[in-house]
Amino acid sequence: MEQDETIQNECGKTIMAINDTMDILGGKWKISIIACLCYSSMRYSEILKKVRGISGKVLSRELKELEINGLIIRKVLNEGPIAVEYSISDYGKSLKELTLTIADWGLNHRQFVIKGMAK
Amino acid sequence: MEQDETIQNECGKTIMAINDTMDILGGKWKISIIACLCYSSMRYSEILKKVRGISGKVLSRELKELEINGLIIRKVLNEGPIAVEYSISDYGKSLKELTLTIADWGLNHRQFVIKGMAK
Repeated sequence: MEQDETIQNECGKTIMAINDTMDILGGKWKISIIACLCYSSMRYSEILKKVRGISGKVLSRELKELEINGLIIRKVLNEGPIAVEYSISDYGKSLKELTLTIADWGLNHRQFVIKGMAK
Repeated sequence: MEQDETIQNECGKTIMAINDTMDILGGKWKISIIACLCYSSMRYSEILKKVRGISGKVLSRELKELEINGLIIRKVLNEGPIAVEYSISDYGKSLKELTLTIADWGLNHRQFVIKGMAK
């Protein structure tokens, strides 16, 4: 019974922690944007191309929210045509393992589905 | 330039894999439900209590989708009042690391925010 209670408490704590993460990374796109910027800094137009299916309006909103939460850095480049570059912040880098774990599972899942269909 | 291209390709593959995962686990609740069932099998009413804020209608839909994707198992218990128990499938267990990685980041983030506010 006591052990049951410990498990229940741990479960509750884990769910609370997952909610905390998803409050920051929730929605369809943020994890992809972070994963992108973990590879290299990119201009707005490059991210728009990489994260297929996202609209310009939604990308702007997502970038703004990630910037407010200190996960990415926005920099206006002083070059000919005005361009904005986004890079991952030191704090944002703490998400690298998370993005790779999520990507790994997706890769395995694709294999799993392909194998299932081949049966 | 060649290295640049390799990075770009890897970035594209990672984003595709993340999309594959999020197609299965997207939305606000599924990761929490999976995390819950990784601790122990639970009845519908228990999950409803654990995953705070979810409505009965949404929980039913989420459970159905997770069942269709082979991540959880639904079992009708032959006891007095009819009850339904959900448990994690062997395949669903492959998500345990992912849920814990997400929870870990949430725990650290909470500490980070608290420290920031204390400054």
